[in-house]
Amino acid sequence: MRLLLVNPNMTQAMTDSMAAIARQLAGTRADIVPLTATRGFPYIASRAEAQIAGGVALEMIAENLEGIDAVVIAAFGDPGLIAAREIFDVPVVGMAEASVLSAAMLGERFSIVTFSPVMRRWYSDCVAATGLGQRFTGVRTPQRHAPDVLHARTAQRAALIELSRAAALEDGADVVILGGAPLAGLAPEIADEVPAVVIDPIATATAQALALASLRIAGPSRASRPIGKSSVGLSPALSRIIAAESPLPG
Amino acid sequence: MRLLLVNPNMTQAMTDSMAAIARQLAGTRADIVPLTATRGFPYIASRAEAQIAGGVALEMIAENLEGIDAVVIAAFGDPGLIAAREIFDVPVVGMAEASVLSAAMLGERFSIVTFSPVMRRWYSDCVAATGLGQRFTGVRTPQRHAPDVLHARTAQRAALIELSRAAALEDGADVVILGGAPLAGLAPEIADEVPAVVIDPIATATAQALALASLRIAGPSRASRPIGKSSVGLSPALSRIIAAESPLPG
Amino acid sequence: MRLLLVNPNMTQAMTDSMAAIARQLAGTRADIVPLTATRGFPYIASRAEAQIAGGVALEMIAENLEGIDAVVIAAFGDPGLIAAREIFDVPVVGMAEASVLSAAMLGERFSIVTFSPVMRRWYSDCVAATGLGQRFTGVRTPQRHAPDVLHARTAQRAALIELSRAAALEDGADVVILGGAPLAGLAPEIADEVPAVVIDPIATATAQALALASLRIAGPSRASRPIGKSSVGLSPALSRIIAAESPLPG
Amino acid sequence: MRLLLVNPNMTQAMTDSMAAIARQLAGTRADIVPLTATRGFPYIASRAEAQIAGGVALEMIAENLEGIDAVVIAAFGDPGLIAAREIFDVPVVGMAEASVLSAAMLGERFSIVTFSPVMRRWYSDCVAATGLGQRFTGVRTPQRHAPDVLHARTAQRAALIELSRAAALEDGADVVILGGAPLAGLAPEIADEVPAVVIDPIATATAQALALASLRIAGPSRASRPIGKSSVGLSPALSRIIAAESPLPG
Amino acid sequence: MRLLLVNPNMTQAMTDSMAAIARQLAGTRADIVPLTATRGFPYIASRAEAQIAGGVALEMIAENLEGIDAVVIAAFGDPGLIAAREIFDVPVVGMAEASVLSAAMLGERFSIVTFSPVMRRWYSDCVAATGLGQRFTGVRTPQRHAPDVLHARTAQRAALIELSRAAALEDGADVVILGGAPLAGLAPEIADEVPAVVIDPIATATAQALALASLRIAGPSRASRPIGKSSVGLSPALSRIIAAESPLPG
Amino acid sequence: MRLLLVNPNMTQAMTDSMAAIARQLAGTRADIVPLTATRGFPYIASRAEAQIAGGVALEMIAENLEGIDAVVIAAFGDPGLIAAREIFDVPVVGMAEASVLSAAMLGERFSIVTFSPVMRRWYSDCVAATGLGQRFTGVRTPQRHAPDVLHARTAQRAALIELSRAAALEDGADVVILGGAPLAGLAPEIADEVPAVVIDPIATATAQALALASLRIAGPSRASRPIGKSSVGLSPALSRIIAAESPLPG
Repeated sequence: MRLLLVNPNMTQAMTDSMAAIARQLAGTRADIVPLTATRGFPYIASRAEAQIAGGVALEMIAENLEGIDAVVIAAFGDPGLIAAREIFDVPVVGMAEASVLSAAMLGERFSIVTFSPVMRRWYSDCVAATGLGQRFTGVRTPQRHAPDVLHARTAQRAALIELSRAAALEDGADVVILGGAPLAGLAPEIADEVPAVVIDPIATATAQALALASLRIAGPSRASRPIGKSSVGLSPALSRIIAAESPLPG
Repeated sequence: MRLLLVNPNMTQAMTDSMAAIARQLAGTRADIVPLTATRGFPYIASRAEAQIAGGVALEMIAENLEGIDAVVIAAFGDPGLIAAREIFDVPVVGMAEASVLSAAMLGERFSIVTFSPVMRRWYSDCVAATGLGQRFTGVRTPQRHAPDVLHARTAQRAALIELSRAAALEDGADVVILGGAPLAGLAPEIADEVPAVVIDPIATATAQALALASLRIAGPSRASRPIGKSSVGLSPALSRIIAAESPLPG
Repeated sequence: MRLLLVNPNMTQAMTDSMAAIARQLAGTRADIVPLTATRGFPYIASRAEAQIAGGVALEMIAENLEGIDAVVIAAFGDPGLIAAREIFDVPVVGMAEASVLSAAMLGERFSIVTFSPVMRRWYSDCVAATGLGQRFTGVRTPQRHAPDVLHARTAQRAALIELSRAAALEDGADVVILGGAPLAGLAPEIADEVPAVVIDPIATATAQALALASLRIAGPSRASRPIGKSSVGLSPALSRIIAAESPLPG
Repeated sequence: MRLLLVNPNMTQAMTDSMAAIARQLAGTRADIVPLTATRGFPYIASRAEAQIAGGVALEMIAENLEGIDAVVIAAFGDPGLIAAREIFDVPVVGMAEASVLSAAMLGERFSIVTFSPVMRRWYSDCVAATGLGQRFTGVRTPQRHAPDVLHARTAQRAALIELSRAAALEDGADVVILGGAPLAGLAPEIADEVPAVVIDPIATATAQALALASLRIAGPSRASRPIGKSSVGLSPALSRIIAAESPLPG
Repeated sequence: MRLLLVNPNMTQAMTDSMAAIARQLAGTRADIVPLTATRGFPYIASRAEAQIAGGVALEMIAENLEGIDAVVIAAFGDPGLIAAREIFDVPVVGMAEASVLSAAMLGERFSIVTFSPVMRRWYSDCVAATGLGQRFTGVRTPQRHAPDVLHARTAQRAALIELSRAAALEDGADVVILGGAPLAGLAPEIADEVPAVVIDPIATATAQALALASLRIAGPSRASRPIGKSSVGLSPALSRIIAAESPLPG
Repeated sequence: MRLLLVNPNMTQAMTDSMAAIARQLAGTRADIVPLTATRGFPYIASRAEAQIAGGVALEMIAENLEGIDAVVIAAFGDPGLIAAREIFDVPVVGMAEASVLSAAMLGERFSIVTFSPVMRRWYSDCVAATGLGQRFTGVRTPQRHAPDVLHARTAQRAALIELSRAAALEDGADVVILGGAPLAGLAPEIADEVPAVVIDPIATATAQALALASLRIAGPSRASRPIGKSSVGLSPALSRIIAAESPLPG
C-alpha cells in the first residue's frame, strides 16, 4: 500500500518527524509518501489559516493521488478533511479526527494536551465537529505561548507531563491526545508518567489510514458525491476531479 | 455606511440580483459594494467547493476592506465565514447563518426550502454549525436537480411554493428560509401563499449586517484573534492582515 | 417606523435610560415609544416574577400596538417573549435573546456578565431556551448581591470590567453580554478594557427590532398562530387579539 | 395528606373528571382539593395562554396553600410549573412533566397522543423543556381540530387507539402518554388495545405528588429561592409569598 | 402491595439499612421483601462489576417475582435496570434513575454527592444514560477513597455536608442526591445544614416504586418486549421468562 | 499478533463465518483465536440478553487473555464492551462501536441496515451510547422478523440491497453498516449496488483491533481502572483480574 502523508504546514522538519513515525508504524505494510506545503503558513493555528491551507491540501492530494491507497492530512486540526472526503475516492484521515475517534475506542472520556494556548479554540472546534463533544474533557495547555513551536516537544516536556496528569486525575480523561504536529513522537516517551492512555496523533492517523484502506471500500458511486463543476484558477488535477461526472441523488 | 457584498460564486447575474435586493433593503442607510469571484466556481454546492471559495472570499474581503463597515458573504452556505470573522475587524455576516439566527427570532422552528437536492447536505451542515439544529425541521427540495440553476426562481416557482407549504403544515416550521442565491427575491413574491414567515436570505443578511454595524463594536483587541503569521502565496492584502500582531490570550 | 419599548419592570428610571440608548441607536429611523409596567415588580429576577410580568407585558403590548412596527421587551430574561411572538403580527424582540443571537454572529462563544448572583439562574435558563447553550461559557457575577440594583452600573464598574476580562481570558468568550437593565449603556464605556466584543442588550435588541421590521414580513396567516379563544379577566385589547380567528393547521 | 389540584383552565367539567381520577388513585392516602380557574381560558392550548394562565395558577396556589402537602397543576402543558416551584415550599407537580418523567421509568422511548393538532407545538415544547427530548418519539394527533374538545375522549376514541398503536408500532414508543385534560380517564380503557404502556397524566401526576410529598422534603432554606420582592397588583397571598425574605446564595 | 428490594451487592448490612428506610417510607402501604446477592461483589463500583451484578439481579428478580407489585434495584448505579425493564411485567425502579428523575421534579439542576472518588465515573455515566445530563451539575466526592465503605455515612458526615453545601452554593444545584447505598438514611439528618433539597435514593426509589405500582399499568403486550429465546446456563426462572412468547413488532 | 475473537452468541456457524472474514482481513498480520459462548443465547437481540451475555464475554476473555494483543467482541451490539475496557489491559473492540466510529471517518452520516425489526431498538441504543447519535440516520430493516436468522444473508439479500439503497438515497447516509453477525460477509457482495460506502462490521472491527494494537499502548496504570475487588461466583481468571490492585485516582 501507499499512504500519502500531506503536511499542509510549510515546515519541512515537521513533515520529516511525522513521516518517520508513520514509517515506523506502517513497517512493511505501506510506503509513506510525505509532502510539505509550499504555500500557506509555517504552522496553522486558526480557522482562517485552516481555510486557506485546506485548499492547498486539496491541491496537494489531487496532484499526487496516482497509486495512493489512503491519505493522511498531517496537521492536527484537519484542514480540508471534510472537503477532501467529498471528492477523493480513497479514505482520507485527519490527525485530530482519527485521534478523537480512536480515543473513543480506548476509553470513555478523552482530553487534548498541547503546547500553546493559541491552539485551544481551533482544537476544541475540531472535537465539536466530530459530534463527540460530550465525551471531551477539554484542552489543557501551558498558560503562555512560546514562539519556538518547533522545539516545544523537548522544551516543554515537563509541563506537558504535568498537564497530561492533570487531564487524567482532575478532568477524568481516560485517554490523553498529545495534539499538534510539534509534539509528534512524544506520547510513547511520557506514557509511563501519565495515568491514562496517551496517544500520538500521527501514529494514530497512520494506523487508521491503514485500517480503512484494508477494508478495500469502493467509493466512486456514492450518492453523496458532489455533482461535477467547472472551475477557474484551480490546479489542473484538482479541477479535473471536481469536474468529474457523478451520480445525482434520487 | 458601506457594506461589502462578496459573492464567492463566479456568476455575475447572481451578484446583480442580490445587490439589487440589498440596495432596496439598505435604502439611504448604506452603499452596497458588490464583488463577484473571479476564481472558483459558477455556484458553490459542496463542502469541497466551499473550502476553496472560502479562501477566495478572504482575499476578496482583504483587498476591499478600506472604508467598509460590514461584510456580507453572499452565498448561502457561508464559505469562509468563520475564518473571516477571526481576522477582520468589522462584522462579517453570512446568508445562511443570518437567516437561521433571524428565523430564531421570528418563530420557534424553521425550515430551509431550496431549488435542488444537491444542496441538501451542505445546507444541513450549515445549520448544525450554528448550534440551532434542534429547532431545524429540515431541508425540502424538488426530487431532481435541474441544471439551469440561474432560472430556478421562475422555473420552479410552483414547486417551491408547494415545498414551503409542506414545510409549514407538515414539518411544523414557523419560518421558511428560501435558501440559495438563485432564489434571491422570491420570498416576498410567494409569502402570501405560505402559512409561515418566509424570509429572503440576502435581504436578511443585509439587515443583519446593518444591525451589527450600527452597534459600532470595536474588534481589534479581542483575545480570540489569532496571533500574527507569516505566509507564502496569499494576496498581499490578506497576507498583511494575517501577519498583524495581536494580543496573546493569557 | 415606530418601536414599542416595553419595560415589564416597574422602574421608570430603567425605562428612561433604556429609551435613551434605543433612541441613540435608532436615530431618525424610528420613533421609540417607551412604556413602564404599572403592575408587577420593581425589577424581575426569577422565573416566578417573569411568569407574572410576562402576562403584564402581553397586556402592555396589546393596548399599544396601533401603528407599531416592532416590539422590544426591555428586560433581560425576556418575560412573555415566546407568548408575544405567538399572537402579535409584528416582530417581537427580547433583550436576552437578541443579545445571544447577535453574539452568535460576532464570535464563536459568548458569556453573560451581570451585577448580582441572584440573576444567574434565570439568565442561564434564557440562554438554554434559545438552543445555543453549547456556545455559552456561563454567567459571571460579583459574589454578593448588592441591594441598590439601580446604581450597579457605576457602583460595580471595576468589578464588572474584571468579570468581563475573566470571561474573555479564562472562559474563552469572544463576546461578552452585559446582562440586565441596570447595566444599560455600560458596554461602550468599558469596551476598551475588555479583550472581547462587549455588547449592550438594549442597543442590540433595538438594532434587531429595526432589522426584523425592515424585512417587512407579513405574519397574520401563519399556520402556527393559536386558534381563537374566548377569555375572562384579560384587558379588552389582549382579549380581542386572543379571540381572533386564525387558520387551523392542516 | 392534602393535595391541591389546580386546574388553570376554566372548565369545571374537566376539573370534576380529573378530581375523580385523582381521588381514585389517592384512595385514603390523601384528600384532593380541586380548584377551577375563574379567569383565563376554557382550555389552554398555546404558550400565550399558558403565560397568562400560569400567573392565575400562582395566585390560586398561594391563596389555598394552608395545610397542603403537594400541588398538582392539572393542565397538560404545566402552566406556571417552573415559577411555582421557585416560590412554594411544597412539591409542585405538572401533568406533562410528571408523565414524561414517569414514562422515562417505564420504558426507553415515549410518545404523546392527543386530541387535536392544535396542541402539538405546546406539548412538544413541554417535553423539550424537561431535557428528555432525545427519548421522545413525537406527538401524534388527528389531522383536524374538532371544536368540541370536552367530548374528545368519547368522540375520538377509535382514532386515539389507532394513533396510540402507530406510536408504538411505527415510532417505537414503549410508553404512550394520552395528553390533555379532556382525555383524563381514557388510558385504562384502551390499554388492552395498545402494545405499549399507556399512561393517564392526571393519575400519574397524582401518584407523583403523593410520592414526592411522602419524602417529607424541607424546602424553605434552598439557595435557589428568589430573594424577596415587593409587588403591585398581585393577590395578597401571592404578594406575601414573593415578598418573603430568603437566603442569598453565596 | 409487595415490593421486592433487590440489593445486587453482597453486603447484608446495606440491605438491612435500606430495607428499614423503605419500610418507614412505605408504612402500611406495602410489604418490603429484601434480598441480598449471594454472588458478585461486596459493593459495586464500576461498569465491569455492574455488568456481572446486573445479571445476578435479573436472576434474583426472576426467582422472587411471584406476588410482587414492583421491584427496586437497591444499588446506586442501577445494575441490570434497563435489562430488567425489558423482560419483567411489573415496574422496575433503580436508585440512581429514580433519584435523578425525582430531582428533576424538585428543581432545575441537581448534583450527586457521594463518599468516594472511585464512584464518580459510574455515577456520571448513569446520569448521562437518563438523558438529563444537561441539568446535572456533577459529582462531588472527598478527594481520597476510604476503604471502610460501610461506615462512610458516619465517618465522613462533616465532609459530606460540606460537599453538599458546595454543590448548592458553587455548582448551583437545587437538589443534592446523596448517592450510594452506604449513605442510606443520611439525607434527612443533614437536610437542615444544606441550602438545597437533599434526597435519599432508597427512600426516593421506594416512593417511585409505590407510585408506579399504584398506576396499575399492564405490561405483557408491549411491542417492545424481546421475542422469546432459548438459553443455556440461566437459572430456571429467568430462563423461563426469557423464553416466553411475546408479540412481534409490526 | 494474536486477536481474540469472542462470539458471545452460542452459534458456532456465526463464529466460523466471522473468523473466516477476520482471517482474510488480517492476512499474515495476526492469528485469529475464535471462541463461541457455551452459555447464554443462540443469538442476542435485546438489552436483557446482552446483560447476561456481556458477563459471559468477560469470563471468556479473562480465561483466554494469555498472549493476546487485542480483543474483538464479535456480536453487533457489543455485549460487555464497556465493562471489558475497564478491566483488561489490551484494546477491546466491539463490532457496533468500531463500525460506527469507522463510518464517522468515511462520511458525514451513517445508517444501519439489518435483517429483522427485532434488532432495531438495541442497535439504536448502541449508536446513542457512542455519542454520535446526531450523525445517525437510523436503522432500516425488513418489516417482519424471519425466524431463520442464520440464513438471513442469502434469504433476504434483495431486501437488504433495497434497504441499503433507501438508507443512502432517502435518509442521506454516506455509509451503510450491515449490522448483525448473520450478515457477515455480505457488504463486499452488494457494495456495487448501493450508492454509499457499505461496511462489514466484523471486517471493520478486525481492522480496528489491529490498528489499536499496532499503537502499542500501555494500559495498566490508568487512573480510571476500578479498584481491586473480592468476588464470589466468578470464574477464577476473571475473579483474579477484578481483584488486582490498581492505582486510586487522586
